[in-house]
Amino acid sequence: MTEPKYRRIAAALKDAIAAGEYGPGDRLPGENDLMAAHGVARMTARQALGVLQSEGLAEARKGAGVFVRTASPLRRLSIQRLARRQWGSGNSVWAADTADRDLVVDQVAVDEQPAHQRIAAVLEVAPAAPVCVRRRRYVLDGEPVMISTSYLPTALVAGSPITRPDTGPGGTYARLKDLGYEPVRFREEIRSRMPTAEEVARLALPGGTPVMLVCRTAFTARGDAVEVNEMVMDANAYVLEYDFEA
Amino acid sequence: MTEPKYRRIAAALKDAIAAGEYGPGDRLPGENDLMAAHGVARMTARQALGVLQSEGLAEARKGAGVFVRTASPLRRLSIQRLARRQWGSGNSVWAADTADRDLVVDQVAVDEQPAHQRIAAVLEVAPAAPVCVRRRRYVLDGEPVMISTSYLPTALVAGSPITRPDTGPGGTYARLKDLGYEPVRFREEIRSRMPTAEEVARLALPGGTPVMLVCRTAFTARGDAVEVNEMVMDANAYVLEYDFEA
Repeated sequence: MTEPKYRRIAAALKDAIAAGEYGPGDRLPGENDLMAAHGVARMTARQALGVLQSEGLAEARKGAGVFVRTASPLRRLSIQRLARRQWGSGNSVWAADTADRDLVVDQVAVDEQPAHQRIAAVLEVAPAAPVCVRRRRYVLDGEPVMISTSYLPTALVAGSPITRPDTGPGGTYARLKDLGYEPVRFREEIRSRMPTAEEVARLALPGGTPVMLVCRTAFTARGDAVEVNEMVMDANAYVLEYDFEA
Repeated sequence: MTEPKYRRIAAALKDAIAAGEYGPGDRLPGENDLMAAHGVARMTARQALGVLQSEGLAEARKGAGVFVRTASPLRRLSIQRLARRQWGSGNSVWAADTADRDLVVDQVAVDEQPAHQRIAAVLEVAPAAPVCVRRRRYVLDGEPVMISTSYLPTALVAGSPITRPDTGPGGTYARLKDLGYEPVRFREEIRSRMPTAEEVARLALPGGTPVMLVCRTAFTARGDAVEVNEMVMDANAYVLEYDFEA
């Protein structure tokens, strides 16, 4: 089987990116350049550039060409960042990951809602029992990268700072500890899919960009689930890292 | 802002799937059905079905309609499955995850190659130093779900069963232990992107399906990286789970 021409051209462009000939934010050769350089038809040149876009390596900007993606992904060290020495000392659990980068939390909204069935099942509350819902968006170096929604049983957190936008030093986990529900164990479940229209809008996702979903559940020493946190991440913006022993 | 009609129809279909009205493998209402039921144009009905396909909930089969996806994802418990009690006792590290499911490994190929720069950097071998490359594909319940490629320094594994297709009881990690390079610590790095054309072909991926990439590095007690395993998974076929303490 001979590799189609557009794939050979795409492979050459990928090699050039890997070699640093085109850096983040650089404009790639246009259709006319590729037609001249490789002696191919416009459709072939377009397909080659399409490969890089569909793989998330490049993005088209209207009328300006196709550019190497700029975002260098944020490395998220789940196990280290959720260690008690982080939030137990009053640091944000995010501090571990975002050295030298500008991370802003916006669109914070806290309210009370009846629990969806899937959330009620994990938190072991009655279906439609009231839960505290904390929504926020994370913006890294000016680009929205994650939508995060936490659910906690109202029965546990009513009246506490967890029900207010600013939860104070150490955040939600430090406050859960204050309330006698210290998280000592976490489960993270990771999936990936194409984004919904709402996610495309809120995360300003270019075409060909999936989302990674991380659903974290926090458990107390008694084994009770006290928080479910559903995160939706721009897959291009994150590398999730887990380090553990055999 | 009013929600467009096609999105309301898509939401209704999603609710019906969540409620079990349409189970895995069931045919969803067709364009004509949706046009009649909701009084919309064909394009609107098609867009609604397109939403479910692009989110990976449904797939079109040529000439037969749009069907609810059948694959129930495989839950991959990384930390438990890589515990020494698994492979140390001669079990496959896969045994932990695949109870009651039919997992077949095919397309096994082992050869020696010069290390790519990124692999050489992690294994701390000279660029283009020889590495043992083990490729295989995992087929779950008859569907290909993962391509896996391991790299180990030839200097460590030459002449051992690791260079043969069948590595014996406990697999590569048990053999590394036999050689004096027991893995005691692992790093897994997870990303997601749209698949390459080759990945679409090897994993038989329908449209709108991203891949999850897991890059695992195995370290000895001395801190030496002895294996890099790059996995490419059908994102629809896997949930990755990590359980850990605060």
